Amino acid sequence: MAETMKGLKRTHRCGELTAANIGETVTVMGWVQKQRNKGGIIFVDLRDRAGILQVIFEEAECGAENFAKAEKLRSEFVAAITGRVERRAAAANENLATGEIEVRALQVRILSEAETPPFPIEADSRTKEELRLKYRYLDLRRPDLQKNLILRSKIATTIRTFLSEEGFLEIETPILNKSTPEGARDYLVPSRVHPGTFYALPQSPQIFKQLLMCSGYDRYFQVAKCFRDEDLRADRQPEFTQIDLEMSFVDVDDVIDATERMVAKVCEEAIGLEVALPLKRMTWDEAMNRFGSDKPDTRFGMELTDVSDVVKGCGFGVFTGALEAGGSVRGINVKGQAEMPRKKIDALVEFAKGYGAKGLAYLSVMPDGSCKSSFAKFMTEDELKALVEAMGGEPGDLLLFAADRLKLVWSVLGALRIEIARQLELIDDNKFNFLWVTEFPQFEWSEEEERYVAMHHPFTMPMEEDLALLETEPGRVRAKAYDIVLNGVELGGGSVRIYQSDVQERMFEALGFTKEKAYEQFGFLLDAFKYGVPPHAGLAIGFDRFVMLLVKADNIREVIAFPKVKDASCLMSDAPNLVDEKQLEELHLRITE
Amino acid sequence: MAETMKGLKRTHRCGELTAANIGETVTVMGWVQKQRNKGGIIFVDLRDRAGILQVIFEEAECGAENFAKAEKLRSEFVAAITGRVERRAAAANENLATGEIEVRALQVRILSEAETPPFPIEADSRTKEELRLKYRYLDLRRPDLQKNLILRSKIATTIRTFLSEEGFLEIETPILNKSTPEGARDYLVPSRVHPGTFYALPQSPQIFKQLLMCSGYDRYFQVAKCFRDEDLRADRQPEFTQIDLEMSFVDVDDVIDATERMVAKVCEEAIGLEVALPLKRMTWDEAMNRFGSDKPDTRFGMELTDVSDVVKGCGFGVFTGALEAGGSVRGINVKGQAEMPRKKIDALVEFAKGYGAKGLAYLSVMPDGSCKSSFAKFMTEDELKALVEAMGGEPGDLLLFAADRLKLVWSVLGALRIEIARQLELIDDNKFNFLWVTEFPQFEWSEEEERYVAMHHPFTMPMEEDLALLETEPGRVRAKAYDIVLNGVELGGGSVRIYQSDVQERMFEALGFTKEKAYEQFGFLLDAFKYGVPPHAGLAIGFDRFVMLLVKADNIREVIAFPKVKDASCLMSDAPNLVDEKQLEELHLRITE
Repeated sequence: MAETMKGLKRTHRCGELTAANIGETVTVMGWVQKQRNKGGIIFVDLRDRAGILQVIFEEAECGAENFAKAEKLRSEFVAAITGRVERRAAAANENLATGEIEVRALQVRILSEAETPPFPIEADSRTKEELRLKYRYLDLRRPDLQKNLILRSKIATTIRTFLSEEGFLEIETPILNKSTPEGARDYLVPSRVHPGTFYALPQSPQIFKQLLMCSGYDRYFQVAKCFRDEDLRADRQPEFTQIDLEMSFVDVDDVIDATERMVAKVCEEAIGLEVALPLKRMTWDEAMNRFGSDKPDTRFGMELTDVSDVVKGCGFGVFTGALEAGGSVRGINVKGQAEMPRKKIDALVEFAKGYGAKGLAYLSVMPDGSCKSSFAKFMTEDELKALVEAMGGEPGDLLLFAADRLKLVWSVLGALRIEIARQLELIDDNKFNFLWVTEFPQFEWSEEEERYVAMHHPFTMPMEEDLALLETEPGRVRAKAYDIVLNGVELGGGSVRIYQSDVQERMFEALGFTKEKAYEQFGFLLDAFKYGVPPHAGLAIGFDRFVMLLVKADNIREVIAFPKVKDASCLMSDAPNLVDEKQLEELHLRITE
Repeated sequence: MAETMKGLKRTHRCGELTAANIGETVTVMGWVQKQRNKGGIIFVDLRDRAGILQVIFEEAECGAENFAKAEKLRSEFVAAITGRVERRAAAANENLATGEIEVRALQVRILSEAETPPFPIEADSRTKEELRLKYRYLDLRRPDLQKNLILRSKIATTIRTFLSEEGFLEIETPILNKSTPEGARDYLVPSRVHPGTFYALPQSPQIFKQLLMCSGYDRYFQVAKCFRDEDLRADRQPEFTQIDLEMSFVDVDDVIDATERMVAKVCEEAIGLEVALPLKRMTWDEAMNRFGSDKPDTRFGMELTDVSDVVKGCGFGVFTGALEAGGSVRGINVKGQAEMPRKKIDALVEFAKGYGAKGLAYLSVMPDGSCKSSFAKFMTEDELKALVEAMGGEPGDLLLFAADRLKLVWSVLGALRIEIARQLELIDDNKFNFLWVTEFPQFEWSEEEERYVAMHHPFTMPMEEDLALLETEPGRVRAKAYDIVLNGVELGGGSVRIYQSDVQERMFEALGFTKEKAYEQFGFLLDAFKYGVPPHAGLAIGFDRFVMLLVKADNIREVIAFPKVKDASCLMSDAPNLVDEKQLEELHLRITE
């Protein structure tokens, strides 16, 4: 039988009591973590979101009725306990914030009984995730998830406070939007009032925030829910949250400045981390050449070296063939791994092939200075020596080479570098390496569509000095686009937007858009641009991902209260589910096979 | 040709400059409100979100090139202007915050030209709403909409800061949910991965916030997007925002206390209004009896009077008939309107019929004390006198009566009271009358379903003293439910929730739910309740409505950036729209006729 809390008022949270409260009579309420009877004394660990508190029942002190109730307490029962705070009779428990004290109970009410939960409520759970997600309401009691969600809330508050103080206005944009055919797949919402038509859930508030700039709001932000109906990866959810912002009358540096001060503030307030500003910046070219990635993890070295010139005339056909086809030969130096077992090297070759490489050439600089290599026999001693030297190879090093189209070489070595660093545990988990990658290419060539497509989106402003190349060499045009990267993860990105109709027209032309097609997709934005548009720029940060990195979780589900799994379903609620035939009729829909 | 802002930095917003800046050289950027050439001097009013600034171009000062550009400026062009702040040569303009000063231009760049907008960008627009909504990005430039949205952002910040300081955590709950058959109509989202199934957009985060209490988060809030596929009224939108909160280990008073302090804080910070706390409270019974409404507008009197006892034995069959059928006879006294023209009274009768009344009996107390009435002939002099006296009727008063089932009498007179107050302009627009309505009935009888249905929802806790009536007289059970009312509008409401499984079972029984049906709908919540649930309570406030009342807008669309119209479409983007056949195929859907 559940008792009521009538006449009772909680005075403190369990985890908030300290030695400063000794002597006070307090009332705490929470969940029983543990109850045990040791020689006629009942010890209860009571838990709430602030922490765990030890409560002690002695019959002489609390009376028979309360003692009997204390005996009935089981794990996860909810109890309200009134008692006196005293210094612990036993030695202090240093693992507990409340470890110096205990509460000697005078009264207890059992507010709610509980069945035995299907898994223990404790940190570092080894329960398999499916079960945890099915019983998410129990999983959410675990201290590590509580810590994550409490921090998430704090980070959101910090961001909002910072942006408000900087003059940003939080403006809500619609969730029920117009569907546009390009980009990722929309989630659709059938309209009942207009049979046969649909709303789309927003993939981002991009167009709305640009409209708000046209409307003069000057600085906008939103902690915005966005949706993409794509197959999920570890760091993706069908719905996700982004810190979305846009500023008028600014250029690249203004957005970067505001963003990095915001990020530094969050790091300081959320996890006490000092981030030195300004953050490092690196052009896209430099990032690709040094790290083979536009989101380089700079917590370790193992950078790429271009050896194309060195191997140009050598006897190894794989290298020279790639070069003759217009490709590149580049390598990474895995220090001290010259004697990596063949099996492990083979696994790396397979890994590289997963990224599209035809193979991976390797060379071990043995302790005695000699070279052991898959391709040594095709090269002269001098060629080998020059190659090792170019790679900074020293006795004990393992050199790995990819030879192919440059884009492929980058992606293979970029991925390999991360994989090897993980295997060799070269990455310092306590480092938070932020950096900006700037000057992205405006376009990338789509093999599929046989045309240039926008790397960011068609409203991204090209760099002034490259404007003239728009018609002649689009592949060389750089954009005023920037990404912020943390520990090898793209935290967010943005760009300066085109605000001149002549540049916008040239851009659509470069992208092969007819005027009609452009209008069909972006009509109301293009219309808005006719009536006076300010220079503007913005950025969006993946909020879930940012929180995940700050709490060092390895999965985005650990920072979302009610996440979905890989097939976009919710194991707790069983969404999505079947609906009544009547509901479908109202929407004028029928399900096909 | 648009110029760039390269090398330029905005130093101030237009509306921020004051006499304190006299002598400074500043750079401002904004939209041209007005340009005129008066005797060779060009006056430009430049506008941004902070206000309007007067800029003066004289060729001798700014040079021929800049002067020529200034001549080209038209309304809504975007310009960057550098100049010197000086005291106005002419008299100060007291209508303008910047009215004491002007900027004497040294340089101008035209950042963007503009076509003539389809309606003028000015406050108090008389443009019809359809056109404003089609060009919402222009409408949003108008100072009154800007003021509303800036205030909305500020109010959200105030609320979040207040709740954070009170220990509430903001926790995001999913937008893609499970559909449940009861309640208002869900918006559905077809699943691509699980053909034939659907997500539902949330009507509120009710179940999730109760789960979060089960999980120990203790104090939760969210500025939550909610969705209802219902036909729209003036204060409804298909998507709306609510301030949603929930607290553990609390009772009615705790929620009321936290909420009213939050509301008072908002009023103070947003509109400088002091709200005296605690707010007035009124039981549901009192509200209905005095005002015929569970959301009484207390800014004026004209309260209801029960005259059933007075007319009990009278000769007027409409009155006695209603009483004999178990109904009630009640009236309102419209002071000083005894001589209201017959036509107007007839219109009120029609109005009452719109609320289900069969008619409306009226009685004018003429200046000479005689009675003019539609029913005087059926009553004796004494009966009439007693009735007038019971109504507090004085010479010059108009008395209106409804006789019917009590519920209908309340609703007719409650609506009539408001309508008459509007017509007679009895309502003081500067009053903000908050109050709590408490002790709502637990159930209301559904004629349609011939059973009791929950007035709030099936998790609402009955008052302890009425628990025993649950099985015997459910109609008399009062709930621990409360609404906060502002000026006759329900701002929000909530309740204490049932946390004891035995009470919950009795509740389902009273509602005629089988255990299976309860499980089908609320399964995971009921499961969660097995594992230790704290006493908890919460509330939700309609955020759009709250902002609307604070800025004194008469339509919710005036406080939403991109609202929808009555048929749930967006006039700017044309959402909802047709989608590709391919998209429907992926969702395994076909449109029926």
